[in-house]
Amino acid sequence: MAAAIRSAVGRGSVATGLRAAAAVPASMRFASSKSFFPNEPEAPTVKTAVPGPSGKKAISELDQVFDTRSVNFLADYNKSVGNYIADPDGNMMLDVYAQIASIPVGYNNEHLAKAASSPQMVNALINRPALGNFPSSDWGEILKTGILKVAPKGLSNVFTALAGSDANELAYKAAFIFRRQLERGGPDVEFTPEEIESSMNNQAPGAAQLSILSFKTAFHGRLFGSLSTTRSKPIHKLDIPAFDWPQAAFPQLKYPLEEHVEENRKAEQASLDEVEHLIQHWHLPPAAVMVEPIQSEGGDNHASPEFFQKLRALTRKHNVLLIADEVQTGVGATGKFWAHEHWNLQDPPDMVTFSKKAQTAGYYYASHALRPNKAYRQFNTWMGDPARAMIFRAIIEEVERLDLVNHTARVGDYLYGKIEALAKQHPEHFKNLRGKGQGTFIAFDSPKRDQFLAKAKEFGINIGGSGASAVRLRPMLTLQEHHCDILVEAMEKIVKAL
Amino acid sequence: MAAAIRSAVGRGSVATGLRAAAAVPASMRFASSKSFFPNEPEAPTVKTAVPGPSGKKAISELDQVFDTRSVNFLADYNKSVGNYIADPDGNMMLDVYAQIASIPVGYNNEHLAKAASSPQMVNALINRPALGNFPSSDWGEILKTGILKVAPKGLSNVFTALAGSDANELAYKAAFIFRRQLERGGPDVEFTPEEIESSMNNQAPGAAQLSILSFKTAFHGRLFGSLSTTRSKPIHKLDIPAFDWPQAAFPQLKYPLEEHVEENRKAEQASLDEVEHLIQHWHLPPAAVMVEPIQSEGGDNHASPEFFQKLRALTRKHNVLLIADEVQTGVGATGKFWAHEHWNLQDPPDMVTFSKKAQTAGYYYASHALRPNKAYRQFNTWMGDPARAMIFRAIIEEVERLDLVNHTARVGDYLYGKIEALAKQHPEHFKNLRGKGQGTFIAFDSPKRDQFLAKAKEFGINIGGSGASAVRLRPMLTLQEHHCDILVEAMEKIVKAL
Repeated sequence: MAAAIRSAVGRGSVATGLRAAAAVPASMRFASSKSFFPNEPEAPTVKTAVPGPSGKKAISELDQVFDTRSVNFLADYNKSVGNYIADPDGNMMLDVYAQIASIPVGYNNEHLAKAASSPQMVNALINRPALGNFPSSDWGEILKTGILKVAPKGLSNVFTALAGSDANELAYKAAFIFRRQLERGGPDVEFTPEEIESSMNNQAPGAAQLSILSFKTAFHGRLFGSLSTTRSKPIHKLDIPAFDWPQAAFPQLKYPLEEHVEENRKAEQASLDEVEHLIQHWHLPPAAVMVEPIQSEGGDNHASPEFFQKLRALTRKHNVLLIADEVQTGVGATGKFWAHEHWNLQDPPDMVTFSKKAQTAGYYYASHALRPNKAYRQFNTWMGDPARAMIFRAIIEEVERLDLVNHTARVGDYLYGKIEALAKQHPEHFKNLRGKGQGTFIAFDSPKRDQFLAKAKEFGINIGGSGASAVRLRPMLTLQEHHCDILVEAMEKIVKAL
Repeated sequence: MAAAIRSAVGRGSVATGLRAAAAVPASMRFASSKSFFPNEPEAPTVKTAVPGPSGKKAISELDQVFDTRSVNFLADYNKSVGNYIADPDGNMMLDVYAQIASIPVGYNNEHLAKAASSPQMVNALINRPALGNFPSSDWGEILKTGILKVAPKGLSNVFTALAGSDANELAYKAAFIFRRQLERGGPDVEFTPEEIESSMNNQAPGAAQLSILSFKTAFHGRLFGSLSTTRSKPIHKLDIPAFDWPQAAFPQLKYPLEEHVEENRKAEQASLDEVEHLIQHWHLPPAAVMVEPIQSEGGDNHASPEFFQKLRALTRKHNVLLIADEVQTGVGATGKFWAHEHWNLQDPPDMVTFSKKAQTAGYYYASHALRPNKAYRQFNTWMGDPARAMIFRAIIEEVERLDLVNHTARVGDYLYGKIEALAKQHPEHFKNLRGKGQGTFIAFDSPKRDQFLAKAKEFGINIGGSGASAVRLRPMLTLQEHHCDILVEAMEKIVKAL
């Protein structure tokens, strides 16, 4: 598969300055949507297998010092642009995987480049502060004009971190501290000598005999606490010590949803019943329930707003915190800035964690009650990175400028409709299509999933999977209708070639 | 305390362009060592209490959205230069705390600024890769010219991370995987169905019933796995669930060392005996022993090279991995690039973790045997940050250019001698002076430690503590003799004022 693919596309871009434009007959270019990126190609270019000879050589050199067994291909980020990722062999792929759902506004986005070149950025890179002790004078302003500008409704505080895993673990720590303060009789009650002494030996009562309740097929990270709540795949967990924390079944909805209403309602109620049972009876009582709005690594598993509304009511009833893990769902991809906005809660989650498309991490929370009663209980040297917080600020500005959340809701509907039509033609390859009304957060099950993903590169598409059999779409917020056309056309070719 | 202190100093800098020069009588400026930073002031400036009115106001605004109870003061990183940290009230402090030991080559270092302004940096900031899947074409080169250029002897591979805590946890995971592979009969032996199933329930045999052995008063981070090995202070551990992992006593050496040779030898042997006992008998067998070359948060506790040589022999004998936590000791401050070089081992530690002065994090390891037998067992989305890896590369270049490791060894000797002399005059304030021959990694116990640290700001010194009663010096590698003079002169004033 070495021939260049510069296929005609139904709704191609006519933006000027396209690199590949010369190769596309003028008759095949149609005006529909102007590309956000003037230099973006009109279509993928495939020159070699991926990785190609140059890429393979470089991977083998890198492997001497860095484990490369998970490497898909080396990318050329100088040549990547907008929704397209380049490799060292001259291939240019439409990227709907986007660094595992973590690129929000396109490669080499000009507004981000401007932020990254600013004197304030240089300063943040070379004078990295210990944010808990010596934040910069402008840290408040960086938070208020960035991370906090998009704070979920009802949550006005933030604790910054570096990645999704530590953001989740810090939220867990906040939950444990909060719960033990409640049990102790309030924040003003001092630790007992026994608690102080036993904590140093990792024993009760100082080390809390509490848990975090998560759901089967959930993914919340891979450090020791977060991994204890992760239930995605054995390869994530084997051989790593874990806490004996409880898991409830996540509802396994059947598709199409409108044909399985009652069945799905029952599955959701059974899951809620199990949550309540575990809250009441698990030998290490849960301090919090951790949940993804859409289980993203575990196979793109959805539940209804009613499920989450009841989960909120249930946790409130039992005085257990509810944490929404928006590491993968956050920052616009579902057609809302935060996916949990789809739940229409009156009573927000107690904490919301973020990372990935935010390019920095942390957790939002509402009240000072979730600040530990004493300083230094939640603390580490860096507590995040102002440089990355500034990138998030620039991302937010770009999302606002281009109205990318509403845009993604619209494009997602368009894309869902096209895949739905394709699935009707090839039902054997597109099963359980899901994500309707959830922006571009769309997935389907494919019996030949791994071949599908591999074959996609031959047609110039970089795409990922989740769970055991799902193909998951995780494009950037800058995906436009003409990209959807290219993608769906390629999908048709892929399944025909399987 | 609002008067400006621009005291005469014994060996002041005569570098041109000094901001404070006008205030210092010419007769008080002496040539001795040329400052590395032409714009560095000659001496601290104290205009207000720290934090001053501007700082306090800004802290109170920040506190609405960000817990500020651990904030010492807000810094003005635009005005900070070299070894001096500025605040918004016009104070300029000699900084021998350096963002909890994490600033290596001075504020606003020009070489770092150049690296931070490069097109390669902008690219890394705006196109953040998932390094495990899609590293950039130049990732190998960034590693080889940076992080790996200073790899500890015998360790040629690196796994990159984001902070010291996750670097340590990733090293623990590598140790658990390695140990279970051994127990299973080698990397080619497949998991059993029972292991696979039980791992998903956080139960044995899939979840390993193993441990990491650490030392009392150790600090290895504050996520759930790393915190289970941290034994520094109850406030770090209270209310957080912990693994039932073992701890051995760390030798508590008596000072001066030359007067307690036999006693200290016995303390070290007792510690080693306890390690061996725990390796043989703890109910969750240790897969690794984790140790800091100098216990840094726990109170600056040292042990002899012989202790570490025997610890290496002991772990080797029992086929338990030895991990050196160089998060705080690494990158030159002890007068060696890595503090464990002081041990003179023939057989290196199996892994060495780093962060802080490296401005990025990860662990080094030697052999492919420490790579898990399958891909994706050690994996996460970002697996570090190329932007921060490039900053480390620039730091390494600067360390080489100015020969800062040897420089720090020399300056450390100079500083130690001066403090030793001061301690003889004020033995009640300087107890157990330690760190001789360990660069500027110097500490002493002060019965009025917390007052000492607070009072220091009144004399224009930013300095930190460790453990229950230690004042710890953690200057940058750019500390020079004339800074030592200012520091020791201020120390004398501080103790006289206590």
